[in-house]
Amino acid sequence: MGLIVQKFGGTSVKDRSRIFNVARIVMNTRNEGNDVVVVVSAQGDTTDDLIKKAAEITSDPSHREMDMLLATGEQISISLLAMALQELGVPSISLTGWQAGFNTDRAYTRARIKRLDTERVESELARNRVVVVAGFQGLNRSEDITTLGRGGSDTSAVALAAALHADRCQIFTDVEGVYTADPRKIPKATKLKEISFDEMLELASLGAQVLNNRSVELAKKYNVELEVISSINPVPGTIVKEESQVEGMLIKGVAKDNDVAVISVLGVPDVPGMSFKVFSLLAQKNINVDIILQSSGRDGNKDVVFTVPLGDAETALATLENNKKRFGGGEISVDKTCAKVSIVGAGMQSHSGVASTMFEALSNANINIKMISTSEIKISVIIDENDADRAVAAIHDAFIH
Amino acid sequence: MGLIVQKFGGTSVKDRSRIFNVARIVMNTRNEGNDVVVVVSAQGDTTDDLIKKAAEITSDPSHREMDMLLATGEQISISLLAMALQELGVPSISLTGWQAGFNTDRAYTRARIKRLDTERVESELARNRVVVVAGFQGLNRSEDITTLGRGGSDTSAVALAAALHADRCQIFTDVEGVYTADPRKIPKATKLKEISFDEMLELASLGAQVLNNRSVELAKKYNVELEVISSINPVPGTIVKEESQVEGMLIKGVAKDNDVAVISVLGVPDVPGMSFKVFSLLAQKNINVDIILQSSGRDGNKDVVFTVPLGDAETALATLENNKKRFGGGEISVDKTCAKVSIVGAGMQSHSGVASTMFEALSNANINIKMISTSEIKISVIIDENDADRAVAAIHDAFIH
Repeated sequence: MGLIVQKFGGTSVKDRSRIFNVARIVMNTRNEGNDVVVVVSAQGDTTDDLIKKAAEITSDPSHREMDMLLATGEQISISLLAMALQELGVPSISLTGWQAGFNTDRAYTRARIKRLDTERVESELARNRVVVVAGFQGLNRSEDITTLGRGGSDTSAVALAAALHADRCQIFTDVEGVYTADPRKIPKATKLKEISFDEMLELASLGAQVLNNRSVELAKKYNVELEVISSINPVPGTIVKEESQVEGMLIKGVAKDNDVAVISVLGVPDVPGMSFKVFSLLAQKNINVDIILQSSGRDGNKDVVFTVPLGDAETALATLENNKKRFGGGEISVDKTCAKVSIVGAGMQSHSGVASTMFEALSNANINIKMISTSEIKISVIIDENDADRAVAAIHDAFIH
Repeated sequence: MGLIVQKFGGTSVKDRSRIFNVARIVMNTRNEGNDVVVVVSAQGDTTDDLIKKAAEITSDPSHREMDMLLATGEQISISLLAMALQELGVPSISLTGWQAGFNTDRAYTRARIKRLDTERVESELARNRVVVVAGFQGLNRSEDITTLGRGGSDTSAVALAAALHADRCQIFTDVEGVYTADPRKIPKATKLKEISFDEMLELASLGAQVLNNRSVELAKKYNVELEVISSINPVPGTIVKEESQVEGMLIKGVAKDNDVAVISVLGVPDVPGMSFKVFSLLAQKNINVDIILQSSGRDGNKDVVFTVPLGDAETALATLENNKKRFGGGEISVDKTCAKVSIVGAGMQSHSGVASTMFEALSNANINIKMISTSEIKISVIIDENDADRAVAAIHDAFIH
């Protein structure tokens, strides 16, 4: 039939029985006539155990040595999975990141793939073997081992699928696909048959932790068709592709993100360049600013209000307090009890009434909106974190029946 | 001063405190003005844990995948040791076997080093770094990871010392050096200041488990001065070199080996080629035959008696029984209650009376000798295993005061 890249996370290979479960999925895909490349992460708690070992030695490990250490995690899983496949009679071979041709930049612990030499993988496929590749890792120009950072195995899988011109890249998870909301919280949430890359990107960045953003961006760039699919329950998952073909479904999902703090800088002089100074200070500290609201000038002053990740709130606050003079600012405060609730859907901008339906739902639920942000395919609101779950339920009810 | 290669086994790096102990030894060696290359094994039980993981998957793992799996053990220790050195302020870098240039043949799980490209190691030394190298592993021509088998890290260390023309290769262990007998058994056993390669080879193969034979052979071949030294107690160890310079010490050691079975084949026709047939049958099964005694012909028959490793005794017996006709042999029996006790010393052949002193000591202790074998630098006797410890004590008393 074709060439399929299948990616399995750490939970999917955490022990003997899960490894054989994965091996059987791979075997079935192969028995349907496909060539299969499998990308795996480190087993269950392996990465945490390795991090603990390093923490016993030093509180500030060299990033290079950390990558040397962590890369062993995937090397263990690939060899075990190759053994399991062989035990089932499926010819297979494991390859580390560097054996599979992953060339990265020098940024240890968060390297980016520069080039992928697929020669070895292709020659093993030509020998009719299933190729089991260590995700998350590569080699830089100095021939040192690097790791790709959070979600790196997804990225490895998509990069391989792109370079090999695979017919599909299947990302196996513990959920059955992408849902209209978190199914653990919203019982009425339904699984999407399809979703576009852009919608998926918005959902991923909004806290629907299904797919890593970098991997979706890469899939979009090289037009790799993704499928988010369950490694437990063998039913079709959610297809992520350029254009979602499903008609009549305006809103693809409702997502909640509690990792939000709102910072208010009140009384900034209303002269050009002042808010630039605020945000350039934060950029220097590598703090991502998400939603920004700026009040119109009043008494020659304006208020600048924005959101940052919760973990960066204190650093942001301290940075701004220490440099107050540079933007002539007044009172600075932080609100850590916020949540962001968003709806995502490619067609929403051309449909009037989407925003008002959302706001009406929140109003009926007696939930106060602190900030609003809209884009072509999403609307986000900042509300009190205690209202967040109710908000998701109310919005889901209003849009998805 | 010079360049020192230091090798530490799994016990020496088994946990945080032992890792820092090693890091301090390395730091001290460096502070004395030496360049240092460190070779380490996998931590404590890591290799056993990995073998257990594989055993859960299959009873017959592919050797290639086994090497892929096991090589992670040393990769974990090198990164942790490099971190510990850096924590102590010592610039250092870890290198896997392939990064350190170990090219091997294709024999997975028991590969032999074919070539060692020291470019990377030398360039790191030139940058004033301690280089921490993963022992036991290399890369074959297909760029697949191999391991060197039992004692492989010793071999890695000696090979590096040879290729780098190091001034010394220190093998750190849990004992303080090479003793005239097992110090746990013989309280009067003394530590040797020096021993020759040949004497060490005899002692190693005789069951004095201090140094792996392959590494001593390699050291002899490239004339690498070895030192067996304690990682716990910082006192000078035993130097192993071409010619031992210590005068007046005839016997270097008394060793005991319980891993011996005596096989007797009685009534073999006394015609040419018959004993060859016996031993070629065993060679086909990869069974090493050590001491051989053959009685002179009697009634046209002869008796062939020889020793094999205990673990091979049953296979040897079955092989001979099943092929009895080929050597026209009669009664075959095995004695598994034997031990081999040996004395080793380069000068013994030119000194009369060594053998008779040994036999007299055994006679005085009322110990019966079943077989005797002599070479240029050793005399071995096969006795009842229950007498072995007493025999070692009696011989040690007779020679070493």
